[in-house]
Amino acid sequence: MVDPRTSVIAERLKEVKRIIAVSSGKGGVGKSLVASTLALALAKKGLKVGLFDLDFTSPSTHVILGIVLGIEGLRPEEDRGIVPPIVHGLKYMSIVYYSNDLAVPLRGADVSNVLIELLSITRWGKLDFLVLDMPPGIGDATLDLIRLIEKPEFLVVTTPSQLAFETVRKLTSLLKELKMPIIGIVENMKRDQTRTIQQQTRELGVAYLTEIPYDTKVEEAIGSPNKLLDTLIGKSIQELASEMQNL
Amino acid sequence: MVDPRTSVIAERLKEVKRIIAVSSGKGGVGKSLVASTLALALAKKGLKVGLFDLDFTSPSTHVILGIVLGIEGLRPEEDRGIVPPIVHGLKYMSIVYYSNDLAVPLRGADVSNVLIELLSITRWGKLDFLVLDMPPGIGDATLDLIRLIEKPEFLVVTTPSQLAFETVRKLTSLLKELKMPIIGIVENMKRDQTRTIQQQTRELGVAYLTEIPYDTKVEEAIGSPNKLLDTLIGKSIQELASEMQNL
Repeated sequence: MVDPRTSVIAERLKEVKRIIAVSSGKGGVGKSLVASTLALALAKKGLKVGLFDLDFTSPSTHVILGIVLGIEGLRPEEDRGIVPPIVHGLKYMSIVYYSNDLAVPLRGADVSNVLIELLSITRWGKLDFLVLDMPPGIGDATLDLIRLIEKPEFLVVTTPSQLAFETVRKLTSLLKELKMPIIGIVENMKRDQTRTIQQQTRELGVAYLTEIPYDTKVEEAIGSPNKLLDTLIGKSIQELASEMQNL
Repeated sequence: MVDPRTSVIAERLKEVKRIIAVSSGKGGVGKSLVASTLALALAKKGLKVGLFDLDFTSPSTHVILGIVLGIEGLRPEEDRGIVPPIVHGLKYMSIVYYSNDLAVPLRGADVSNVLIELLSITRWGKLDFLVLDMPPGIGDATLDLIRLIEKPEFLVVTTPSQLAFETVRKLTSLLKELKMPIIGIVENMKRDQTRTIQQQTRELGVAYLTEIPYDTKVEEAIGSPNKLLDTLIGKSIQELASEMQNL
């Protein structure tokens, strides 16, 4: 049976110029931080930006942005669909509006269902960029996104750790098989001058976009977007945001 | 329809004394390193130990243990089921024997299917401990495990980061709702003397088991179990292994 909602999705996204899927092979590499900071940096440049947290099993962009949930907190408006609230200059959407930040044990089929539901009800309107915080690895959400959305562009986050990069190798080879465009790789939490990841990225035939030095100030900046833009991750990502039009 | 394989699973695990599910709220906190090191440390004490990598979408324990795959590499033996090969004193099982370390894009229903298949064909034999490297968060594998296995005991890994701990808060509250035993929380990658996580763990009513200092030597020790037992993570986990009988 064809899900009638899937035909609605293209309509909902038709005024969105570019969709950037911030991904990683494994968790804990700073994917949500990069996605949030990239969205903030693009918005700071005066662009129309949306941020959509698709990491349903461990959503964290709302914590990074310092969003207060609950009855007194932020809620999307219902108006022929759902209008995402504007937070720090971003149109922001997450499952946490509905789960009230409680645990959401979702089976894969539910992940698909929530993804399709949120994509088909959210009215993004005109956007220059819609940044997606993807779940780590390749599971239901990634497979559905590829099926449902006209060519999302992938930006892949890794750390200098070989454990992280091995998972990136798998992710990029699969994305290439699926003919998905990969903007490039960002190396996060860099602590020294080694160029191993840079070299291995080029061997994969993927662009090495930028390196982000490890910065202990990031932990304190969680919840404060202005502080975040002032950390080393904020600075590297703002440079990247300036180059985004050419990537 | 009842899956006939589920009734086989209890039979396959009947000689396993304890099943320790090493879990985390989010990825990248060192869950696989803790699981691998715990299994190695228990085996070093002369116990019979199995290690089973259930993080199907980004398996990494084979990289940590330095296992060579492929035709010339390690393969399980077929004998009225699958006999896990012994690696560094552990009976070791992973999906990578069958995927040859290529990307495995699994939908949730496939995760369930692979999990049930591997649980129902693997002949662990007599074990004091079976250590499971769980996927991060709560998805299909965790829900199935709770359904299929008689009381696994959960050991939860976090880092000092508030982002990581918020996901642990959700995981532990859900495990408690499901009446699952939680052995306690391990705080990994600790860089200072703050006791925030220790205090927050106690507020959750969960035991704070140990803290593991951040150690740059861990990256070099990946692939070399002996080196790994000699790092700070190795030392902390060996102490924990000595206490495991009382936990």
